[in-house]
Amino acid sequence: MATDGPSNALKLEQLQRRLGYHFRDQDLLLLALSHRSVGTRNNERLEFLGDALVNFVVAEALFDRFPEVKEGVLSRLRATLVCRDGLAHLAHQFDIASCLLLGLGERKGGGRQRESILADALEAIVGAMIKDSSTTEAATVVAQWFAPEVAVIDESAGLDAKTRLQELLQAKGYLVPTYALLDTCGEDHALVFTVRCDIGEMAPATQGTGSSRRKAEQAAATTMLEQLARD
Amino acid sequence: MATDGPSNALKLEQLQRRLGYHFRDQDLLLLALSHRSVGTRNNERLEFLGDALVNFVVAEALFDRFPEVKEGVLSRLRATLVCRDGLAHLAHQFDIASCLLLGLGERKGGGRQRESILADALEAIVGAMIKDSSTTEAATVVAQWFAPEVAVIDESAGLDAKTRLQELLQAKGYLVPTYALLDTCGEDHALVFTVRCDIGEMAPATQGTGSSRRKAEQAAATTMLEQLARD
Repeated sequence: MATDGPSNALKLEQLQRRLGYHFRDQDLLLLALSHRSVGTRNNERLEFLGDALVNFVVAEALFDRFPEVKEGVLSRLRATLVCRDGLAHLAHQFDIASCLLLGLGERKGGGRQRESILADALEAIVGAMIKDSSTTEAATVVAQWFAPEVAVIDESAGLDAKTRLQELLQAKGYLVPTYALLDTCGEDHALVFTVRCDIGEMAPATQGTGSSRRKAEQAAATTMLEQLARD
Repeated sequence: MATDGPSNALKLEQLQRRLGYHFRDQDLLLLALSHRSVGTRNNERLEFLGDALVNFVVAEALFDRFPEVKEGVLSRLRATLVCRDGLAHLAHQFDIASCLLLGLGERKGGGRQRESILADALEAIVGAMIKDSSTTEAATVVAQWFAPEVAVIDESAGLDAKTRLQELLQAKGYLVPTYALLDTCGEDHALVFTVRCDIGEMAPATQGTGSSRRKAEQAAATTMLEQLARD
């Protein structure tokens, strides 16, 4: 817990209100909040279990929301929702950090705010809910957590900029973009590539730089997408 | 279906008996059995959904069966059960092949017996069960399918031979095995490596060959494990 004392029970109570789930067995919640830095009794096993349920619940939500899209798209959309950043985003909403149990080293090293620790704790909480009540109850709560994001997610979420640009242009009947390497400079171990992205007469060419040709192309495509969104 | 005619209904009936689940909506079962070679109305979306539930159900079964093992071990054990071969093994038990719906090309190309097609169809059947009844009902059936394998799986399942040999020797208090490259022969594009595995006085050294040093070491370790099992 962040601090010892009588406020801990209150903090846990508030956390459960935010989660939308009250634990019959508070020890299970504490275990879910225990990072491995506290010792061998930690949340790693619960995280394994919870991760599997989160992946299923989000898979089903996307399956129902997009009745026509192919499984490859469903897979990609799920990966954008159930990734470290996506989970940490939820963990921040619930302010899991305020109740995390960390070993001394992690506490001093800023572990309380580390995205991966928060994401893991959130999944562990799901595993703990399963064991506290049932898979069905836990799945209902998880579905509620993800509902707002599932409702607004776009089919192109998780696509890289080059792919999104290409799909956008093809949908409008335009030619695919071309990329040209304009320049490579810098030392051998720290090269900087500059690439131009050209989509013909529809819009001015854009440029992007990066530590690899691929990254520079993505940067140029991102700028092009931003330019097209402004027009 | 393998053949047209009045026997199809019977085949589907028998399949459902083997699966331990009877579909209220037979069209869902047919969709689950439809490989993508039959057209756009195929089982790929259902497979995505079913795969997620299978992974969860097996995760929970292993979590309960091994209350003490770490999540890394649970992960490895699940991967050995929920892999193409593991799923295809079950698909063979249920003789899913007899009811698969394949396009002409796949039928002629032996698709009916392809492990990946059978594994995918099994997962699609799980997805179809979810939509036919409920996640809870589908999960119960899937848990029954995997129960025999979960009951007998060993903590070392899925470990490579070198790791198993090392863990075996360490458990007995012996030194770790050493590997020595004895020979490399053959043309540059088809080298054959020969490696010796030595565990000291406990047993004679073994040899293994392979197209890489790593593979040769694994072969030598496998032979050593077999030798120790015989002793």
